Amino acid sequence: MYRLLRQDGRAKRGELHTVHGVIQTPVFMNVGTAAAIKGAVSTVDLKEIGTQVELSNTYHLHVRPGDQLIKKLGGLHAFMNWDRPILTDSGGFQVFSLAGLRKIREEGVYFHSHVDGKKIFMGPEESMQIQSNLGSTIAMAFDECPPHPATQAYMQESVDRTSRWLERCKAKMCELNAREDTINRSQLLFGINQGGVYENIRIAHAKTIRDLDLDGYALGGLAVGESHDEMYRILDETVPYLPKDRPVYLMGVGTPANILEAVERGVDFFDCVYPSRNGRHGHVYTNVGKLNLFNQKYEEDDRPIEEHCECPACRHYSRAYIRHLLKAKEMLGMRLCVLHNLYFYNHLMEEIRTAIDAGCYHSFKRQKLDGMQNGNA
Amino acid sequence: MYRLLRQDGRAKRGELHTVHGVIQTPVFMNVGTAAAIKGAVSTVDLKEIGTQVELSNTYHLHVRPGDQLIKKLGGLHAFMNWDRPILTDSGGFQVFSLAGLRKIREEGVYFHSHVDGKKIFMGPEESMQIQSNLGSTIAMAFDECPPHPATQAYMQESVDRTSRWLERCKAKMCELNAREDTINRSQLLFGINQGGVYENIRIAHAKTIRDLDLDGYALGGLAVGESHDEMYRILDETVPYLPKDRPVYLMGVGTPANILEAVERGVDFFDCVYPSRNGRHGHVYTNVGKLNLFNQKYEEDDRPIEEHCECPACRHYSRAYIRHLLKAKEMLGMRLCVLHNLYFYNHLMEEIRTAIDAGCYHSFKRQKLDGMQNGNA
Repeated sequence: MYRLLRQDGRAKRGELHTVHGVIQTPVFMNVGTAAAIKGAVSTVDLKEIGTQVELSNTYHLHVRPGDQLIKKLGGLHAFMNWDRPILTDSGGFQVFSLAGLRKIREEGVYFHSHVDGKKIFMGPEESMQIQSNLGSTIAMAFDECPPHPATQAYMQESVDRTSRWLERCKAKMCELNAREDTINRSQLLFGINQGGVYENIRIAHAKTIRDLDLDGYALGGLAVGESHDEMYRILDETVPYLPKDRPVYLMGVGTPANILEAVERGVDFFDCVYPSRNGRHGHVYTNVGKLNLFNQKYEEDDRPIEEHCECPACRHYSRAYIRHLLKAKEMLGMRLCVLHNLYFYNHLMEEIRTAIDAGCYHSFKRQKLDGMQNGNA
Repeated sequence: MYRLLRQDGRAKRGELHTVHGVIQTPVFMNVGTAAAIKGAVSTVDLKEIGTQVELSNTYHLHVRPGDQLIKKLGGLHAFMNWDRPILTDSGGFQVFSLAGLRKIREEGVYFHSHVDGKKIFMGPEESMQIQSNLGSTIAMAFDECPPHPATQAYMQESVDRTSRWLERCKAKMCELNAREDTINRSQLLFGINQGGVYENIRIAHAKTIRDLDLDGYALGGLAVGESHDEMYRILDETVPYLPKDRPVYLMGVGTPANILEAVERGVDFFDCVYPSRNGRHGHVYTNVGKLNLFNQKYEEDDRPIEEHCECPACRHYSRAYIRHLLKAKEMLGMRLCVLHNLYFYNHLMEEIRTAIDAGCYHSFKRQKLDGMQNGNA
């Protein structure tokens, strides 16, 4: 399903073929937690800003409106009217970060809903069942997200359990995809590599999970508090142990700089809440650095956020107007900033793909980073 | 500037020619208080939902970001990127409803800003100056909005002052339109008829102000607490004393039923916050009545808000999805409801114009009202 089109150093340029169309990688997935991108952005907007893959959160949708309701309505694609690929996470990350009191057992995790406090159990089989009900294009394996920092002993125990859970995920996904009433019977499954900043655990785990021959492999448990250099080191050491003929997904990352560095280390897929969260706070990305539109200096600035940017905000509105909207707490201000930021990320990935195609990724990366760090926004 | 194209009973079908294009009446203006429609709706969206006239509030823009800043940036049209007509109110209504402690004097009103408590003075000349700085297509005269109920004596005193203020408004507007540095030197001025529910005061005032030969005439101080029947009675009695060859504007009105009734009584222009405010609360208009999308019965309803509706919400999304968005407090839910409601109002006006053109307004009105009142939404 994944075709490696070209390599430039370790940077990969690939295509993932799915029932919902082809994904050109490297790709940045746009996060729509509860089946909607925060900031009043719709799936119609996503097409306008060049989104290839939408990412929704299994835990949130399970709690509200419920994955069975979504299945009844034809699955997540029909529910939110999006015909391109969707990736759903496993719910694991939210269980570990959002949910109240929880107990981890061999069978899975017991926890309380963050919405109504209701007791919920989720294990590998439940996560696969929910994601199958949602009918996403790509399902993520249910793993434990170990805390950072964690002792090596805890990490080893956690990763071993994650390996056993991964086998159960794969078995359950096979079973679900074989059922006639399954919405997407070609649902893909990505496994998740864990091990924190312990490269020996990461590498051993990568070797274990690659033998399961999954549709893709993710690196989880990064960007959770370790330094950027530690993250890059882990990528340097771990990615070579993941199969080259599968997409590699670095979960929850990150800044434009993080993405530029990670692509060079062989990563295909990214996702992050930064562009939408920052947008809602009036922080916007440009090729010469990030701007805070609340800053007084933009009060009379009639230029767009970025000259020549083709996003729906920059094509029509000025910094001064958007600043006014933000100050006046008009929702439109947030919407325009989020649209710009998502467009910026999607467009950056397009430039990245072009640079790899042209075989000049390293110098492209240096130029981009220099512009962002030394620019005068 | 105003051409009366046709009359059907008292219902008027007209055209107001302005420097920003022709307005087909009857028309519903879409309210964008602070130079933005609440609910993350942009001027690009307004074109998609058939908006002819955008209405902004002088008081709000004077306080933030400031009319002088807007003038510096080329006026309100450039600031919000809208090339069709804009009507600005006088600021009077907000001074009387929003501002803190205020004193009414012959020269104008002293009050405190609702944003930072700063002392502000606004009289007829100040209101004209601010609206000239904004460069709107149509400026409204600065009037007193008397409280409801008010004694006949108070009302007479207030209306007399409003008449004196109107003469000052006209003189100031002439002066401003003659200046070379004025943004819109063809700015129109509408006078405002007051008198509460006292038809004798209303009629006498209508006679007084029509002699000033203004570009249009509004009825103010209605929909402020009196019954619908009282409002219709005042329209029945007052509108005949306003010139037929000028547009008539019923300020702040109202429900679809109010509009249908008022058109039959000769009103051309309307504005109201209902469609956007109701939309933000998940209340949506249809031809068979208003729906509350929070209602559980829409949980699995995969129909659009209204079948065959061509708005951006109905073309792409279901009641079930929008209900989910509202429940999950996703801004997109509000945006879709506001877009639908504004489209509904704009489309209703289009149907109204067609019915007057066809000379069958009365039966059209009856049918519409029956559908809305007896429908099973």
